[in-house]
Amino acid sequence: MAAPTSVDILIVGAGPAGLALANWFRNSDISVLLIDKKPGPTPRGQAEGLKSTTTEIFGAFGIGAAITAESWRLEEIAIWGPNADGGCGIVREQVIQDKVEELGKIRETMLQQSRVEHHMLQNILPHNNITIKRSTVPVSVTINEDASTSYQDVWPVEVKLARVNEDETAAPTTNGNVDELVRAKYIVGCDGAHSWLRKQLNVALEGDLTDSVFGVMDIVPKSNFPDMRRVCYLRAATGTILLVPRSNKEVRLYIPVESGSTLSDPKDLTFERIMDAARKIIAPYTLEPGSVSWWSAYRVGQRVGSHFSRHNERAFLVGDAVHTHSPKAGQGMNTSIQDAYNLGWKLRLVLQNHIRAGQQTLLRTYESERRPVAQDLIAFDRGYLKLFAAPSAQFDTQFLQAMKFTTGLSIRYPQSCVVQLPKGVTELGPSLLKADLVPGKRLPDFQVVYQADGTTARIHDRMQATGAFRLLVFAGDIANPALLDCLQRLGVYLADPSGLGPLTTGGSSAPVEVIVIHCAERDKVELLSLHEVYMPWSDTEGYDYWRVFADAESVHEGHGKVYERLEIQRDKGCAVVVRPDGYVGAVLDFTDFEGVRKYFQGLGMLPVGEDGEAK
Amino acid sequence: MAAPTSVDILIVGAGPAGLALANWFRNSDISVLLIDKKPGPTPRGQAEGLKSTTTEIFGAFGIGAAITAESWRLEEIAIWGPNADGGCGIVREQVIQDKVEELGKIRETMLQQSRVEHHMLQNILPHNNITIKRSTVPVSVTINEDASTSYQDVWPVEVKLARVNEDETAAPTTNGNVDELVRAKYIVGCDGAHSWLRKQLNVALEGDLTDSVFGVMDIVPKSNFPDMRRVCYLRAATGTILLVPRSNKEVRLYIPVESGSTLSDPKDLTFERIMDAARKIIAPYTLEPGSVSWWSAYRVGQRVGSHFSRHNERAFLVGDAVHTHSPKAGQGMNTSIQDAYNLGWKLRLVLQNHIRAGQQTLLRTYESERRPVAQDLIAFDRGYLKLFAAPSAQFDTQFLQAMKFTTGLSIRYPQSCVVQLPKGVTELGPSLLKADLVPGKRLPDFQVVYQADGTTARIHDRMQATGAFRLLVFAGDIANPALLDCLQRLGVYLADPSGLGPLTTGGSSAPVEVIVIHCAERDKVELLSLHEVYMPWSDTEGYDYWRVFADAESVHEGHGKVYERLEIQRDKGCAVVVRPDGYVGAVLDFTDFEGVRKYFQGLGMLPVGEDGEAK
Repeated sequence: MAAPTSVDILIVGAGPAGLALANWFRNSDISVLLIDKKPGPTPRGQAEGLKSTTTEIFGAFGIGAAITAESWRLEEIAIWGPNADGGCGIVREQVIQDKVEELGKIRETMLQQSRVEHHMLQNILPHNNITIKRSTVPVSVTINEDASTSYQDVWPVEVKLARVNEDETAAPTTNGNVDELVRAKYIVGCDGAHSWLRKQLNVALEGDLTDSVFGVMDIVPKSNFPDMRRVCYLRAATGTILLVPRSNKEVRLYIPVESGSTLSDPKDLTFERIMDAARKIIAPYTLEPGSVSWWSAYRVGQRVGSHFSRHNERAFLVGDAVHTHSPKAGQGMNTSIQDAYNLGWKLRLVLQNHIRAGQQTLLRTYESERRPVAQDLIAFDRGYLKLFAAPSAQFDTQFLQAMKFTTGLSIRYPQSCVVQLPKGVTELGPSLLKADLVPGKRLPDFQVVYQADGTTARIHDRMQATGAFRLLVFAGDIANPALLDCLQRLGVYLADPSGLGPLTTGGSSAPVEVIVIHCAERDKVELLSLHEVYMPWSDTEGYDYWRVFADAESVHEGHGKVYERLEIQRDKGCAVVVRPDGYVGAVLDFTDFEGVRKYFQGLGMLPVGEDGEAK
Repeated sequence: MAAPTSVDILIVGAGPAGLALANWFRNSDISVLLIDKKPGPTPRGQAEGLKSTTTEIFGAFGIGAAITAESWRLEEIAIWGPNADGGCGIVREQVIQDKVEELGKIRETMLQQSRVEHHMLQNILPHNNITIKRSTVPVSVTINEDASTSYQDVWPVEVKLARVNEDETAAPTTNGNVDELVRAKYIVGCDGAHSWLRKQLNVALEGDLTDSVFGVMDIVPKSNFPDMRRVCYLRAATGTILLVPRSNKEVRLYIPVESGSTLSDPKDLTFERIMDAARKIIAPYTLEPGSVSWWSAYRVGQRVGSHFSRHNERAFLVGDAVHTHSPKAGQGMNTSIQDAYNLGWKLRLVLQNHIRAGQQTLLRTYESERRPVAQDLIAFDRGYLKLFAAPSAQFDTQFLQAMKFTTGLSIRYPQSCVVQLPKGVTELGPSLLKADLVPGKRLPDFQVVYQADGTTARIHDRMQATGAFRLLVFAGDIANPALLDCLQRLGVYLADPSGLGPLTTGGSSAPVEVIVIHCAERDKVELLSLHEVYMPWSDTEGYDYWRVFADAESVHEGHGKVYERLEIQRDKGCAVVVRPDGYVGAVLDFTDFEGVRKYFQGLGMLPVGEDGEAK
C-alpha cells in the first residue's frame, strides 16, 4: 500500500449532498476527495422536486440557468376528494396556484436527480483540487480528538479505503483488502440513509419507522384522468395518491399500498400490486402504464440524528445520512443540498485561514443551525398528510403555510457567531419576525438594476458561492448630498487598512465584497464619482463596474421595489451583512461602522484589541 | 478517386449561415454535407450582436435557452456629441432604452460568433444525416439545368472537392488534386463575402465599396469614460465611434480611421493607428487597452447580389455570400441566419415530398423574399450614420424606427404561394399594415398558458423548427357553447381524411400541427372534452396535452393579452396559418375551412380537383 494521501476534506458519497458540498471548493486550493461506492452517477429515479431556494443555490454555483432550462415547472395543485354525495369515485375539489407571492419567482420545478447530479458534477470536473474516486468505500476511520486544539496543518482523520466490485443489483463487495490510506483534516458523511459514517460515529437516529408502505413509479400514463399535468392530491378511502407531472410525458405517483402489519417488507411489493392500489384510488378514471421508466417501494422512516457533527467538529453528517422522512413533501434532495450549502462555506473559511480564532465555534453552527431544521421537517412531515385527510375551512391558509415551509422560507437560524442580533436585542420578538430582513433568515431574493448598464440581476444569482461575505450597503437616495456623503465616508472606512480594509481589498479573493444598492434616480448618479471601494480598479482590467445597483425600473423587467419590500427607509438606508450562504448575518444602521466591524471581530476575521476594540 | 457521394444538399461554408441552414435538417432523413475550408470553428472576433428575432430562431432550433444564458444583454444606448459650447471634447446628449415595446422582450444581446457557431454545431452533431468536412474546398461545379423538370431522385449538381492545407494566416492551398466527387440535389453557398460559389454562378454584386475604412477591436478598456457599459455612439468632428459592451469586461469599438484616398488598403492599418483615432474621438476621456483579444480593419462594401438563386433553383446563395454592408447596425450574422432560416424549410418540404407540384415556385420565394430584405438593409445602412451626424428633432422617433428595422420587424414578404392575401385583397394597404397579424410578416411573439398545467410558453419557442406548418386556431371564448361548437366542427374537418386529415395526422411528423388558443376562463374548459385532433392520442404515450392554450393570466408570468394585442375579437376568433419559419402565411375567418384548404392546395400540399376543389 502506498504512503497515505493527505487531503483537506474527505467526502463520503457523491450524491446531491456530496456534490453540493464539493461545489463550495471550486476556485480554491482546498484539496477535496469525494468517494462513492457506485461505479457511476445515479442513472434514474429517486429524488426530483427542486424548490426555488435550492435553485438559488445552483445559481450561486453558476449552474442555475442550465438547470432551470432543463427543469419542468409546476404551477398548479389540484385537490381531489371523495364524491360528496356518497357515490363512488373522486371529484376535483379545488385548484391551488403553486405560488408564494413574496418569492417573486417560480416556487417549484422538477428535474430528476441524475440530471441535477450531472450539472453539479460537470461544474467541479475542471477543478484540479477536487478528485472523485468511484467504486470506493471507506472500511475504517479513526479520528484523533486531541488534534482539535491546533487547527492548521494537522490531519486528525485517518480513513482506510477499498475498491469495490459492484453491479447495479448487488450490494458492493470488497476483496477484503485495504487499497489506500487517506489522512484528512475533515470527513463528511454524505452517504445516504444507510450511512456508513453515521454508524462509525455512533450517531443514533431518533424517531421511528412508520407503518406506511408506499410505492413510487415514473410512468407515461394512459388515462382519462383530467388533471394529469397538475400536481394532484387524490384522496380516497384507501389512501391519498400524490401525482406529480414530469418531463417526457411522464408522471410520478406516490401510492399508499398497505397500512398496518400485513406486509412486513416493502421488497415483497410488485409493480402490479402498486398499480392495483393506484387504480382503486383514481377510479372511476382509468390508469394504465404506457411505459415505466422506474419504480420502487419503501417504508417511511421519520428520524433525525442525535448529532450532526462529532469529534470536536472533525466529522460531519449531511442530508439523508442524518435525517429521513417521507419524500412526499419533496424535501429529501432539497434538504440534503441545503445542509451541504450550510456547511461548505464554514469549512472553506476555516481552511483558508480567514478565521483566526474560534474555528470550532463556527463549525458548531452547522449542527445548531441544521439539526432544528431537520426536526421541524419531521414534525411537518407528520402533520402534512393530515392536512389532506380532512380539509378544514382554513385549508387554503394552511396549505400556503406548508408551501412556504417546504420552500425553506420558515427557516431562521438562532443567534450565534454568524447571526448577530440587533444592539440590545437578545431574542427576536414577533415584531421583528414580520419583516423579511431578519438576522438568521435567508436574504429575500430581489431584482436590482446595474448602475453601469441598466441590466438586471437577482441578488442571490449575483452572490456567487465564492466563500465571500457580502456587505450590502443600502445607501438610500444618494441624489441627496447628505446620504451621498455618508456613503463616501463609509467608503473611506471600508477601504482603510485600520478599518475594514483587510477584509475588502484583494479583488475577487477578498473575504468581504461590498455591494451598494441605492434608490436614487439612476441618471442622477455618476458611477465613477463614487469611492473606489465600490468599483475597484485593476491595472489589467480597469474598473469593476458590477458592484453598484439601483432599486429602479428596469428597461425590460419591471421594478424590483426592494426598499419597499424590505421596509428600508429611503432617507435612512441600512447595512446588511450577508453570509456566504445567502443568509442574513446582521442588519445594521447604514452609518454603524462599528457594528460591521464587531460582526467580523466576533467571527475572528478581524483582530480584537485588549480593550475589546479593533487594533 | 472513389465513386461519387450522393447527397441531398451540399452546403459550402460552416459559418453562421451554413450551420443555421443545416439545423433545419435535424430529425429528417435528408442527407446534408457541409464543407468548410477552415480546419475548425471560428475562434474569435467577427460578428457578435443577436437580435431577438434571431434568438427566436435559436429557440426554434431548441438552443435558445443555452444561447440566452451565455449572452450579454444590452439595455441602454448613450448618444454623445461635441461640446455644445464649442469647447473641445464630447458630452452625453441622451440615453435611450434599447427597447421595442411591441416585442415584449429583450431586443438585443451580445454573444461572440464562435459561441453562436458552437451551439449550432453541437445541435447537429448527434444527427447522422448531417456530415461536416473541414479543410475542404469545392474546386468545380456543374449543374444540369434540364433536370429541373423532374424534382425527385435526380442529382443535377456535381461538385469536385479538394482537401486544403491551411493555417490561420495563410490562404488555403490545395495540392491541385481533386479528392472527391459529390453529386447533390441542391447546392447552397454560405461561403461568405468572398464566396467561391457566387463567382461560379456568375452572380454579380451590385453596389460599391465605400471610401470609409474602419478599425474594429475587442479590448478590456482602462478608461474614465463613464458609459463604458452602455452602447455608445460617440460623435466627434473626426467621426463617430460605435462602442458596444461585451462579456468578460471587454468592449468592442468600431472606429473610423480614414475617409478619402490617403489610405489605399485597410491591411496597412496598425493597431496603434486605430487606437490613436479612437483616443482623439473619446477625448478628454482617457482610453488605453488593458488587453486586446481581437482587432481588424476593413473597408465597407454595400452590395447586393443580382440573384439569390440560379439554375432553376438548384443553387442558392445565403448571407454574406450575396450581400455585404457595414457591421455597425449588427446585421451581418443576424441577416445570414435569417436568410438560411427562410430557405431551409422550403428545401425540407420539397425533399420530403410534401409538395406534390410547384416545388420550383416555392423555392423561388427564397429570392423574392430575401433579396428585397438585403436591398432594404443596404439602403438603411447608407442612411443610418446620417441619423447621428446631425440629430434632428425627430431623432427619437427615427432611432426607434431604426431599432425596429434592425430587429427585423419591418420585414413583410410579398404575396406568393406561401403568403396568401385575404379574399378579394390583391395588395395590402396601409390599414392592414397597422395590425400585427399580417400575411408575410413574422408572427408577433406572445405568451400563452397551457390549458393542461398552467405553465407558459412563448409561441415562437413552442413552434420548433420541425418543418411543420402551424394552424393557430384562435377559437375565442369557448365557454360560449356556440364557439365551442364551431371549434368541435372544425376539429371534425381537420381530422377528416377528405378534409385536412392527410396533413394533420401522423403525430409529430404531420406537416401541419393544429394549435388552439382560446380566451375562455381556463377553469371553464375541460381539455379532454375537446375534439381529439386537438390532443392526439398515442397508444404508447397517451394524450398529447400540449396543443391547447389559453390567453390567460399565468401563475407566475402575468397575462399575455394575445387577443387584445393582435386585435382578435373574442366572440369571433380567427385562424392563422403560420409557416415553418414563423411568418404568417394566411389570416382567415375561424370558420373558413375552405380558406385553410386553399392555402395548402395553392402550395401543392393537397390535391386540387378538375373543378379547382379538393379531391
